[in-house]
Amino acid sequence: MRVLILGGDGYLGWPTALRFSARGHEVTVVDNFARRRWVTGAGSDSLTPIADLDARISAWEEISGDRIRSFVGGVEDGELLDGIVAETRPEVVIHYGQQPSAPYSMISRETAVETQQANVVGNLNLLFAMRDHVPDAHLVKLGTMGEYGQPNIDIEEGYIEIEHKGRKDSLPFPKLPGSLYHCSKVHDSTNIHFACRTWGLRATDLNQGVVYGIETEETARDERLVTRFDYDELFGTVLNRFCLQAVVGHPLTVYGAGHQTRGFLNIRDTLNCVELAAANPAERGDFRVFNQFTEQFSVLELAEKVKHAAEHLGYTVEINHLENPRVEKEEHYYNAIHTKLLDLGLEPTLLGEELVESLLHVIERFKSRAIETAIDPRTRWNPAKSPAAQA
Amino acid sequence: MRVLILGGDGYLGWPTALRFSARGHEVTVVDNFARRRWVTGAGSDSLTPIADLDARISAWEEISGDRIRSFVGGVEDGELLDGIVAETRPEVVIHYGQQPSAPYSMISRETAVETQQANVVGNLNLLFAMRDHVPDAHLVKLGTMGEYGQPNIDIEEGYIEIEHKGRKDSLPFPKLPGSLYHCSKVHDSTNIHFACRTWGLRATDLNQGVVYGIETEETARDERLVTRFDYDELFGTVLNRFCLQAVVGHPLTVYGAGHQTRGFLNIRDTLNCVELAAANPAERGDFRVFNQFTEQFSVLELAEKVKHAAEHLGYTVEINHLENPRVEKEEHYYNAIHTKLLDLGLEPTLLGEELVESLLHVIERFKSRAIETAIDPRTRWNPAKSPAAQA
Repeated sequence: MRVLILGGDGYLGWPTALRFSARGHEVTVVDNFARRRWVTGAGSDSLTPIADLDARISAWEEISGDRIRSFVGGVEDGELLDGIVAETRPEVVIHYGQQPSAPYSMISRETAVETQQANVVGNLNLLFAMRDHVPDAHLVKLGTMGEYGQPNIDIEEGYIEIEHKGRKDSLPFPKLPGSLYHCSKVHDSTNIHFACRTWGLRATDLNQGVVYGIETEETARDERLVTRFDYDELFGTVLNRFCLQAVVGHPLTVYGAGHQTRGFLNIRDTLNCVELAAANPAERGDFRVFNQFTEQFSVLELAEKVKHAAEHLGYTVEINHLENPRVEKEEHYYNAIHTKLLDLGLEPTLLGEELVESLLHVIERFKSRAIETAIDPRTRWNPAKSPAAQA
Repeated sequence: MRVLILGGDGYLGWPTALRFSARGHEVTVVDNFARRRWVTGAGSDSLTPIADLDARISAWEEISGDRIRSFVGGVEDGELLDGIVAETRPEVVIHYGQQPSAPYSMISRETAVETQQANVVGNLNLLFAMRDHVPDAHLVKLGTMGEYGQPNIDIEEGYIEIEHKGRKDSLPFPKLPGSLYHCSKVHDSTNIHFACRTWGLRATDLNQGVVYGIETEETARDERLVTRFDYDELFGTVLNRFCLQAVVGHPLTVYGAGHQTRGFLNIRDTLNCVELAAANPAERGDFRVFNQFTEQFSVLELAEKVKHAAEHLGYTVEINHLENPRVEKEEHYYNAIHTKLLDLGLEPTLLGEELVESLLHVIERFKSRAIETAIDPRTRWNPAKSPAAQA
């Protein structure tokens, strides 16, 4: 299969490129290295020392014999993307090429606009390029569970049957996104749904939970294939951050009470889900939505799991409840349905103590690279309500 | 009241500026004249000969003694808008400053990106400027009934009570926007709702139906105060187009069967609704949605009304069913609730035959300015399914 991966140099994009290449597909990646710049620009860096894209690709060719093709550029450049799609004629496009951080989108007007512009325009450019060159190709788009927010009803997979005043319809599930980044993903979903209805494109939106983990089958094959691992306040996801914090002796940064509940999944399951989606494409005209996570936890439960595992390895771990820099419900109902990927055959990697310990061991190898000043949250969702801690 | 009107040189923006000025408010308008450029760029022009903004403002001052302040610039320029909001410290901001045409957004990737970028970024810039300088001000945003599309259930005003698996919540009404322009308005609604929840802003989204009409109380006071009147395929609204077509002897351009049903309102009611919203602001933190229209008609019903009125004035009128250039349902359920503005005291101007005749009379005065080549639709929602007519 011809596979085009946008954002193919990123935390998930790179391991995805390796996975599809390892399976014998013809892989092309596009990246403008924005993620590398955002993270270093914020005074942090990947904990893992990552090779540049050319070096990664050469290493993979040396190891596997398979060549990944690459283009350097941003999806916001419509001409460029149009040319790449026309030239590579993908059968599946996996779109990770976005600004993925909620706190980054909340820093300032400039970063909010940058986030929405990059994400929405990039995605629109892709929809037009697919319409014009490969209308039968399957778009696999990375969305987020954060699009739904915390409604007081069960979260269904993309759509909900509504019975109202004696009539019925199946309609897009209402969204309550929790940041301007999450809003941008809702915008993308709206645009993709429109493109499927209007142009007959086929798409799968993977509303992904919070990803954790560091290694996949392919990245573990050689040091030069390692993927990035962020732990800073902007680009680090919560479980990855807690694990790094435990290893470097920083108190775990729980925001508020920590009862905020979310869906989580292992990076290995991200790859499995993307593979399952690609192997089972949506029908023409269908905008399919899968809720892509394997387990629900509260933030405090995660902190306790990490503390327990780390203490088992001999670390002393303190849990710190910081005044919540976000505007979010700390006590809420949360039950999100996630059966569609299981129905396709997903076998979840669950978050047992061994798994946390193996994550801690990988982090230990690189801990001298950690930049502790990048850990604590500085970005406030509502600057008018700065926590006392900031005064 | 200090009133800031974005897009204050446009079809609705200019009459709104006059209305608030006539009521004794301190009015500032911002416009970058994009609407003038879009229409002339598409080979059309306002049927009414409109004065430039400075001349309009001078004429109004001469007539009323009141000075409207103006800034030339686009809302996409975040620095500029921030400065204007900081300097004028509005108590209410009325936001019309957007690309308002569905077909324009469907011409090409470039116009789609232009539409979403201008609308989404402009609106985001405004939300930040309000947060930072006038967090207590009331945002009155022009949305559109087209955000909802044609669901098979009654359309409520912004939110819907959902009972699902034994639990309940009141959630944003699901959206099925019918063009990339309509998508951009859904994006705006999502962003404004987020800003109200997160920053405590107050906003009213006026989900407006299709506006028709040409004169308001204030624009009728002097030829130099007339507002623009577009009838071309891109910027003309359907009833205005039919009236112009009847007067110039062009067959009425009904798309498909013409059973598409929508909400409509008179331009005079637009002003009344905006006044009512401004006089009755939303609470802090509240994102209020009003469905702003007065009557529902199918496109064919409108064509027949125009034909009837025009024939009464001695015109010969033919109704032409063109192959539908849009991708839309031509047969569908449609019932949209619209009681909130009535509850605030709106007294609808209904579309009687006299009203259509008066519109035809105004058009007669300017009919020599009509550019007939701008009338027929050329923009196809799905170019892959071009109607036979195009072959």
